[in-house]
Amino acid sequence: MTRKIFKSFVTIEDALNELYKHFTPKPVGVEEVSIDKALGRVLATNVYSEIDVPPYDRSTVDGFAVIASDLVGADEDNPITLKKIGELRTGVVPAIEVSSGTTIEISTGAMIPPGANAVVMVEYTDTENDNVIFYRSTYPGENIQSAGSDIMMGELVMRQGTRLSPRELGVLAAIGLEKVLVYKKPKVAILSTGDEIAPLGKPLKDGQIYDINSSVISGFVQESGCEPIFLGIARDNADEILDKIKDGLTKADVVITSGSTSAGVKDVLYQLIGKLGSPGIIVHGIKIKPGKPTLIGVIDGKPLFGLPGYPTSAAMVFTQLFAPILRQMAGLSPTVAMKKLQAKLTVRINTAPGRRNLIPVYLLRKSNDEHVALPAKQESGSITSFSYADGFIIASENVSYLDEGEVVTVNLFSSQISPPDITIMGSHCVGVDLLSSLIHKRYPNIHVRIINTGSMGGLRAIKRGDADIAGMHLFDEATKSYNIPYIKNYGLEKSTVLVRGYVRELGFVVAKGNPKQITSVKDLLRHDVRFINRIAGSGTRIYFDMLLKNLANEENTTFNELVKEIKGYEIEAKTHNAVAAAVKYGRADVGLAIKPVAIKNGLDFIPLTKEHYDFLIQKVNLSKPSINVFLEILKSDEFKKELPKQNPGLFSDEKTGEIIFGTNM
Amino acid sequence: MTRKIFKSFVTIEDALNELYKHFTPKPVGVEEVSIDKALGRVLATNVYSEIDVPPYDRSTVDGFAVIASDLVGADEDNPITLKKIGELRTGVVPAIEVSSGTTIEISTGAMIPPGANAVVMVEYTDTENDNVIFYRSTYPGENIQSAGSDIMMGELVMRQGTRLSPRELGVLAAIGLEKVLVYKKPKVAILSTGDEIAPLGKPLKDGQIYDINSSVISGFVQESGCEPIFLGIARDNADEILDKIKDGLTKADVVITSGSTSAGVKDVLYQLIGKLGSPGIIVHGIKIKPGKPTLIGVIDGKPLFGLPGYPTSAAMVFTQLFAPILRQMAGLSPTVAMKKLQAKLTVRINTAPGRRNLIPVYLLRKSNDEHVALPAKQESGSITSFSYADGFIIASENVSYLDEGEVVTVNLFSSQISPPDITIMGSHCVGVDLLSSLIHKRYPNIHVRIINTGSMGGLRAIKRGDADIAGMHLFDEATKSYNIPYIKNYGLEKSTVLVRGYVRELGFVVAKGNPKQITSVKDLLRHDVRFINRIAGSGTRIYFDMLLKNLANEENTTFNELVKEIKGYEIEAKTHNAVAAAVKYGRADVGLAIKPVAIKNGLDFIPLTKEHYDFLIQKVNLSKPSINVFLEILKSDEFKKELPKQNPGLFSDEKTGEIIFGTNM
Repeated sequence: MTRKIFKSFVTIEDALNELYKHFTPKPVGVEEVSIDKALGRVLATNVYSEIDVPPYDRSTVDGFAVIASDLVGADEDNPITLKKIGELRTGVVPAIEVSSGTTIEISTGAMIPPGANAVVMVEYTDTENDNVIFYRSTYPGENIQSAGSDIMMGELVMRQGTRLSPRELGVLAAIGLEKVLVYKKPKVAILSTGDEIAPLGKPLKDGQIYDINSSVISGFVQESGCEPIFLGIARDNADEILDKIKDGLTKADVVITSGSTSAGVKDVLYQLIGKLGSPGIIVHGIKIKPGKPTLIGVIDGKPLFGLPGYPTSAAMVFTQLFAPILRQMAGLSPTVAMKKLQAKLTVRINTAPGRRNLIPVYLLRKSNDEHVALPAKQESGSITSFSYADGFIIASENVSYLDEGEVVTVNLFSSQISPPDITIMGSHCVGVDLLSSLIHKRYPNIHVRIINTGSMGGLRAIKRGDADIAGMHLFDEATKSYNIPYIKNYGLEKSTVLVRGYVRELGFVVAKGNPKQITSVKDLLRHDVRFINRIAGSGTRIYFDMLLKNLANEENTTFNELVKEIKGYEIEAKTHNAVAAAVKYGRADVGLAIKPVAIKNGLDFIPLTKEHYDFLIQKVNLSKPSINVFLEILKSDEFKKELPKQNPGLFSDEKTGEIIFGTNM
Repeated sequence: MTRKIFKSFVTIEDALNELYKHFTPKPVGVEEVSIDKALGRVLATNVYSEIDVPPYDRSTVDGFAVIASDLVGADEDNPITLKKIGELRTGVVPAIEVSSGTTIEISTGAMIPPGANAVVMVEYTDTENDNVIFYRSTYPGENIQSAGSDIMMGELVMRQGTRLSPRELGVLAAIGLEKVLVYKKPKVAILSTGDEIAPLGKPLKDGQIYDINSSVISGFVQESGCEPIFLGIARDNADEILDKIKDGLTKADVVITSGSTSAGVKDVLYQLIGKLGSPGIIVHGIKIKPGKPTLIGVIDGKPLFGLPGYPTSAAMVFTQLFAPILRQMAGLSPTVAMKKLQAKLTVRINTAPGRRNLIPVYLLRKSNDEHVALPAKQESGSITSFSYADGFIIASENVSYLDEGEVVTVNLFSSQISPPDITIMGSHCVGVDLLSSLIHKRYPNIHVRIINTGSMGGLRAIKRGDADIAGMHLFDEATKSYNIPYIKNYGLEKSTVLVRGYVRELGFVVAKGNPKQITSVKDLLRHDVRFINRIAGSGTRIYFDMLLKNLANEENTTFNELVKEIKGYEIEAKTHNAVAAAVKYGRADVGLAIKPVAIKNGLDFIPLTKEHYDFLIQKVNLSKPSINVFLEILKSDEFKKELPKQNPGLFSDEKTGEIIFGTNM
């Protein structure tokens, strides 16, 4: 295997300048669309009005058309009477003329009849047979909107480049346009590469993973005002990739590839792409992290962009480098509609100097306008970290860290993304899922994010201020009590309150009928039993390890010796559901989980204990309206009723929703 | 004509509560869509993963798979050599096992071969034939992403009610979903009513205006996540309206009507609608301004909403009352995605107490995050005021005014709307249009709004702080100079600077060949000559009135006497183009305008004077980046070249772009 070492790295600016030497981002064409299909499109021409709006003098009120001089001096005490000679409805062409001493009744929007120069509102008149009594005078032009006063024939009503919102559609309709010339949506061909990449909807073969990037990039392409075309998946083979790129260049205005094409294939590919057209690959290697192997080419006037393979990296590089180019090709301004937010960093972030660092973050809402940004843990290739990442921050080449407390600009991944109102971290529980559902039902505008980190993770998150609420069920062996000893141990007894959550039955989850006859921890040491563990730091894991320690004492051995005996101790499930799924699908014989996940999955449950699942909240956050909503729902009768109904083995008690440790002072 | 007087007005809250008694806004159904069509849709179900992600233990780097214990103690000084027994590419199922003393070369993303428990990055190795030299030790699990570590089988990966952005599409793709269950888009039938309303695209008959509301409401309906269905236009006739509503109820989940149905027709209609289904009309009359005649009905479970006829009113009432209902029916949160901005009011606004006031405003950007809101002049039925309105502010029933300087919340009409970076008010000029185009070309993110108010309007706007820049060409007879005397007269000589714009040739615009033989102002007094005037406050109007005054002196008569002689003096065109159009289409014989509009419209031009068109800017705004962009473009060679080329009769001079009055101190 020969490996490509990237020799020439350039800055983002140099990369783009190199691109602009060969390609100018501009609209790819125009097309006519009907007004009802034009929402969100971009006007490709200046629009001048061919008519006057309104096209005729019209009444702006229901009333009587008069000659103003007929009513000089009219008031409550000295009303003046005119003879009503007709009625004018809206949309009707006046057939008679108002002459001195006469009046015509007129509806809002109707044409002003010849002769009349003012309209008196019906409120200031009385009608007796054919006589209309006026209690007010008027002046020429009152309550008349003259022809062209709104838009005059020949006037420029809308400028080229305007994005059409409902407001603009209304203005175009006002001058009678049924169709409008807009910029064509550029077509963007999308290709995923890699021998391991499999299409969606089909079962995976060994060694395969699903194609994530095609869907992500397609979404971004659409949000940039372009139309995606899927080229499918190319195996990691220069000819196959080249064929797909060729196909893309005939079908589309831009080709975007993604995936970690192996270095060997890349070398060959670069030369071959050059033969497709000129100038070929112009940038391969950018001083950016992640995104080093980002590729930019131009082939006979059409750009070719190569993104990194990991979804978070692909998303950041696309948003930062390529979205502005696609937007300009769609006739949109490059970045103005991109959503940005100011947020305070709660932790120091070390960066790689000499490269521009794009750091994915998730956001915590402190108040309506105040946000906190936290780095989304970047495990290599993790899609979960992407699913929490709201956007990214940029650290320039000349800094080596971003400081705690610094205010940073977060580039949101989509204008559809807004930070959650409540972030709950900690132990996974179906009861928390229910709370989130009930909040959504009663307060659909309140957006709850749940991140499963285990109880200890929740505790640490509250200490750092990374979460609003931590769900925890940490059993302390010494005191035989839940949670409070841990809070004290973390020095949080002054700054937080613990709110009573609910009670959960915890036990072994085994297949229906308990085929392996598991009744105690001791059975897990058997060679025919495969265990599925929970993640380190979870309350369930801590409880299980305590069971093991007790057993070690009884058996006169050590914890570590016992661990070695348990098959699957090192396999860590993040959620109770995942434990149940492992047992259900035969990947494990037993795991420790709460009762409802066993019941829902048709599995058997062997109870071990009843535990307290409580919520830890920073005192400073108790005044946040969203936290009060959380507490309101936790205390609600609906939650008390639904919790055991939906989740057998979970139930509220008389203290649910009350502060059981710390005071709200 | 009998007229309906609205007897029972209710508050917005009471109106909605009344609605909720008969109708609960909730999704109308679910449908399966493929992931590539799912952007922006709302998940209708909880999604659990049926697979582990990744599905197998994989390498996160390019390197060598080893048994960690083989490399204990390895470093630069004491490298350890292992035998390479194979290579593993991504997507390939390992065929051989790593045993002690051996290693397998492995690509990023490839499956970890049996036996191996760590991967060492290629950077820390050297290869000599079949021998791999390791300069670093490792530990079990290093550079390995284990199966299910990202998403575990059985895990809840996405909650019901999630709106799908590109990020969410990526997560769904990660677990292999090709299709996803989303809420159906509710169908909303849209009906415009009124005898005067004509469909788009066809010439208007006398007394007709185009259907504006169908397009506006259709846009809003789409932005609320629903699908519009056009029912067309119903004449103001109870049977016709009823037939269309019936049609809408069979085709759609909601029916929205708009238009000023005449009071007489309404009375009949209300009773007939009740016969379509139960309970019929439940609210007709809301304590809201505008929007008093807003109508709410429910017919056998389907809501019927009646909006006011004027577009601005319809837009505000829809946004405030009905958009949240439609959004909930689409599965979206009622208001969270609605864009709001804080802005400072620059003028006091008097409101109608006892009703909730919705006040359309336009926004001025003071800095990135700081905005100023100004009421959009609400001429009855004006579509122009709607075209400038960015959103509206709400004044509650118990206030009678909003004070100057108050910070208000502006509800934007669309998430696509963002406040302009530069607002130019004042005299209409094609040169300003050119400046705007050149700014857009060089700085596509800078959004320029031009509001034509005439020169005096611009001067007043700068005094009040309603505009960033005023374009003006005000001739002072006494001093025979432009602009500066007016600035002094307004007391702005200390707070503003005047920047030299350019020179314009001003004269009479007449039909080709000058058929009426017009050569001087005196000809305008002839009975066979029809004039088209400019709006009061425009520099052109002031210049024309000065010509008339001079003529009055010469002729020994008064200005007012002369005005009476001029046919069309009272018809006011807002723009030079509109003057040219009036002459071109024979509605007038002559008007006063700048040369380029005559040339462009194929008309003749009789020059009268050369005038200075300059720009007035508040000193405090000179530091705004957007103002500097404006000045940069004004001074640019491109503008100097394009101005006379595109607009014969307009040209820069040596001072263009320089401050000619006031100092930047």
